[in-house]
Amino acid sequence: MKPIKAEIIAIGDELLYGQIIDTNSHWISQELDLLGVRVVRRTTVGDNREDILESFAKAEERADLILITGGLGPTQDDLTKPLLAEYFGCGIVENKEAVAAVTSFFQRRGREMTPLNILQGHLPECCTYVPNEVGTAPGMWFERNGTYWMSMPGVPHEMKKLIKDFVIPKLPEIFELPVIAHQVIKTVGIGESWLADLIRDWENALPSHIRLAYLPSLGHVKLRLTGFGTDRKKIEQEIQNQIDLVLPTIESYVYGYNEETLETAIGKLLKKSNKTLALAESCSGGYISHLITSIPGSSAYFQGAVVPYHNQFKEEIIGVKAETLLEFGAVSEQTVIEMATGVKTLFKSNFGLASSGIAGPDGGTEEKPVGTIWIACAGDSFVETKKLRLTQDRMLNIQLTAVAVLNLFRICFSKK
Amino acid sequence: MKPIKAEIIAIGDELLYGQIIDTNSHWISQELDLLGVRVVRRTTVGDNREDILESFAKAEERADLILITGGLGPTQDDLTKPLLAEYFGCGIVENKEAVAAVTSFFQRRGREMTPLNILQGHLPECCTYVPNEVGTAPGMWFERNGTYWMSMPGVPHEMKKLIKDFVIPKLPEIFELPVIAHQVIKTVGIGESWLADLIRDWENALPSHIRLAYLPSLGHVKLRLTGFGTDRKKIEQEIQNQIDLVLPTIESYVYGYNEETLETAIGKLLKKSNKTLALAESCSGGYISHLITSIPGSSAYFQGAVVPYHNQFKEEIIGVKAETLLEFGAVSEQTVIEMATGVKTLFKSNFGLASSGIAGPDGGTEEKPVGTIWIACAGDSFVETKKLRLTQDRMLNIQLTAVAVLNLFRICFSKK
Repeated sequence: MKPIKAEIIAIGDELLYGQIIDTNSHWISQELDLLGVRVVRRTTVGDNREDILESFAKAEERADLILITGGLGPTQDDLTKPLLAEYFGCGIVENKEAVAAVTSFFQRRGREMTPLNILQGHLPECCTYVPNEVGTAPGMWFERNGTYWMSMPGVPHEMKKLIKDFVIPKLPEIFELPVIAHQVIKTVGIGESWLADLIRDWENALPSHIRLAYLPSLGHVKLRLTGFGTDRKKIEQEIQNQIDLVLPTIESYVYGYNEETLETAIGKLLKKSNKTLALAESCSGGYISHLITSIPGSSAYFQGAVVPYHNQFKEEIIGVKAETLLEFGAVSEQTVIEMATGVKTLFKSNFGLASSGIAGPDGGTEEKPVGTIWIACAGDSFVETKKLRLTQDRMLNIQLTAVAVLNLFRICFSKK
Repeated sequence: MKPIKAEIIAIGDELLYGQIIDTNSHWISQELDLLGVRVVRRTTVGDNREDILESFAKAEERADLILITGGLGPTQDDLTKPLLAEYFGCGIVENKEAVAAVTSFFQRRGREMTPLNILQGHLPECCTYVPNEVGTAPGMWFERNGTYWMSMPGVPHEMKKLIKDFVIPKLPEIFELPVIAHQVIKTVGIGESWLADLIRDWENALPSHIRLAYLPSLGHVKLRLTGFGTDRKKIEQEIQNQIDLVLPTIESYVYGYNEETLETAIGKLLKKSNKTLALAESCSGGYISHLITSIPGSSAYFQGAVVPYHNQFKEEIIGVKAETLLEFGAVSEQTVIEMATGVKTLFKSNFGLASSGIAGPDGGTEEKPVGTIWIACAGDSFVETKKLRLTQDRMLNIQLTAVAVLNLFRICFSKK
C-alpha cells in the first residue's frame, strides 16, 4: 500500500513574528500519525500573496492531503480564502447555509454582526462548505486530481473540532488507510537509555509490523507500540501479547497506559481502596497539590496540603519537633519523615507525603548543594524516604520532585 | 533600508510525526523579530535527503539568513551535516578544535565516548566551526553569495545558547540592522477589546515609526511598542514618551514592563515593603502557591499555604466558623473572608489571600454553577472580596482564579 502523504500549511504573520506559537501543526501531526497518514512537510508562511500561492503549488506537487490553518479572519490581511479561490480558479459567492450559520452564531451569543462578519459566509464556489459550530470562519474542503484540501481557522479549538468531526471521518472514504493500532505504556522512575537496555532483547525480537517508539518527557518515558496489518482485531491482540511479554521486565516502572497520567493513576488507586492522601510540600511549594487537584473528582481522595515555607510553620502547623529541625535541619530525612506523618495526622488521612529540599538557585551548601531534596511517604504502619540529587534549575527541581513524590507513593502503595 | 529576510528550517521525522513539539522555531522567530529581522518562512522537513536539499535550495533563493535546527545527532538517520557538505560542495574532515571540545565534554561529565561521538568533531571543510559548550554537536556557520547559514542542534537549550552567543552578536557585522527598540507594557484584569477601546485615540495618534502589538495570554494582555529609526537613544525616548502619555488611562491595569510577571511584580512589592503573604487555596488547589514559590527568593516574603480541600479542614486548620460554612456554604463571600483572615493569622503574615469555588466539571448547582468562585484579600485593617464567574473548564478556572487572586492582591496592596 502506498503511504498517504500529508502537508500542513500554517498561514499568518503573527506566527512568523513569534507573537503566537503554532501548536496546531504539532497537534495535527499527532492525529495523522495515529491514523497512519505520513506528514511529509510543515510550512509556515506570512500574510503574503506570492508566498501563500507558492506554498499551495508546492504542496499539491507532493501531497495527497493538504491541511491549511489560519488566515481566515474577516479583515483584509486575511488572504487564505481569496487565494484559494484564485488558486482553484473560481469565484467567491454567498453560501446561504454558511451565512445562516454565522448569523445564528452571533444571535446565540447576543453579539452584534458587522457587514464583515456576513462576508464570512461567502465562499469559493469550488469548495465544499464545512460548518464550524464553535466559530465564525467556516471550514472549506477542496478536491482536485486526487489531492484533498481542507482550510480551517487558526483558533486551536475550532481547528480541532473540524479535524475531529469532518477530516478524520472523511479519510477512510477517500484513502485506503492502513489498519493500524497503538498502545502506549507509561513508565516513570527510569531513564530512556536504562529502559532501552532492559528491554533490548524483546525490542530486537519484535515482528517487523510492530514498531516501538520511545517518547521521553520530564521524569517519564512512554513506550508506544504501533502495529500495522489488515485485521485490526488481530493487530490489537498481537500488540497485547507483546505487552504481556515485556511487562514482567518493566512492571515496577509502569503506572498506566495511553491517556493515563501519574496523577490519574494514583487517584484510581486511592479511590478503589477508599483511602485518602495529604501533602506537606516545602521545596515543591504546592505544585504536587496542584497536579492532584487538577484531576476532576480528586476531592474524593485528596484531603489537602500545607506548604510550610519556614521552619516555624513546619513545627506549629505540621508538628515537626523543634529538636529535629535544630539537630538535622529542614532538609533531612528526619524532618521529612515528621512532615509526612504530621500532615497525615493533621488531615486524618491514610497517607501523608512530604518534600523538603533546596530548589535553588540560592541556599546550597557544600554538604547540601542545590538540588538536594528529601521526600517521604507515610502510611499507617510505615514511612519510606528517598534522597534526590537533582539539578541547578529551580523549576526543573520542583517538577522532578513532584514526579518523584508521586512515584514514591505509587511504589509504597503497591507494597502495603 | 532593505528588510533582512530570514528562514527557519527544522529537520527531523520526530517533529513531523508529532513526537516532539517544535518550540525552537517560535523562539527563534521572537528573537529575530526583536532585532528587526523578518522571518519570511518556516519549514519542517523529515530525515529525507531530497526534502532537505530542496528546502536548502528554496531557502537560499529567498533569504539572507537561514537558521537550521536538528538532524545533528551521531546516528545514521541524522542527515543535516553530510547534506550541508554536499550542498556546499565540500568534504567532511576532522576539525581538531571540535574533536577536542567533544572529548572534553565527555571527560567533564565522566561519560564514556564512542567512535560515533568522535565523529561529531568532523565537520564540512567549508563551514566555520562554532563551539557548543552545552552539548556534543557543534554549530556550523556557512556563507555564500551574501546568504548566511547557521546549523544548530535541535536540543532547545543548546540551540538557544548558540543563537545568543554567536548568531545575534554576528548579525550587526554582516547586515545593516535597523535601529529598533521595544518596550512591553504588561496589563492584567482587562480584555483585549476593552483595552483597545480605552486607548484607541492614543493608538491612532502614534507616529508611523512606532508600532503597537496586542499580545494576549490567559488573563493578561501585553502591549508591545516597537520603534524604528536611526538613533537608538532617540527612539527609546520617544517610546518612553508614548508610554507616559498612555499610562494615566490604563495605569490601574499595568503591573509591570518587559520580562516582569505578575508573580515577580508582587514579590517586588512585598520585598520592598518588608511584608509577608500567606494563602488559603481551596478551588485553586495549590496553584497560586506554586506560582509564587517558582520565583527564586520567594521565601523572603512567602510564609506558606494551606489547601483545605474539605470543609472540616477549613474549620480545623484555618479557623473558618462552622456556622459560616453551614449558613453560607464553602463557596461564599463569608467563607472566603474567614479563610483569608484565618490563614493570615495562622502564618502570622501581613496579608492573607483565599479562593473558594466550583472548578468543575461537577459540583455546580443552579444557584452556584461551575465557574462560580469567590476570592479574598485580607490585610491588617481590611478585607476585599470578588466574585468570579468563569468557565466550564476545570484547568482554565484554576488558572484564571490564580491570575484574579494575584491581581486582587496587587490592587489591595496599592490602596493600603
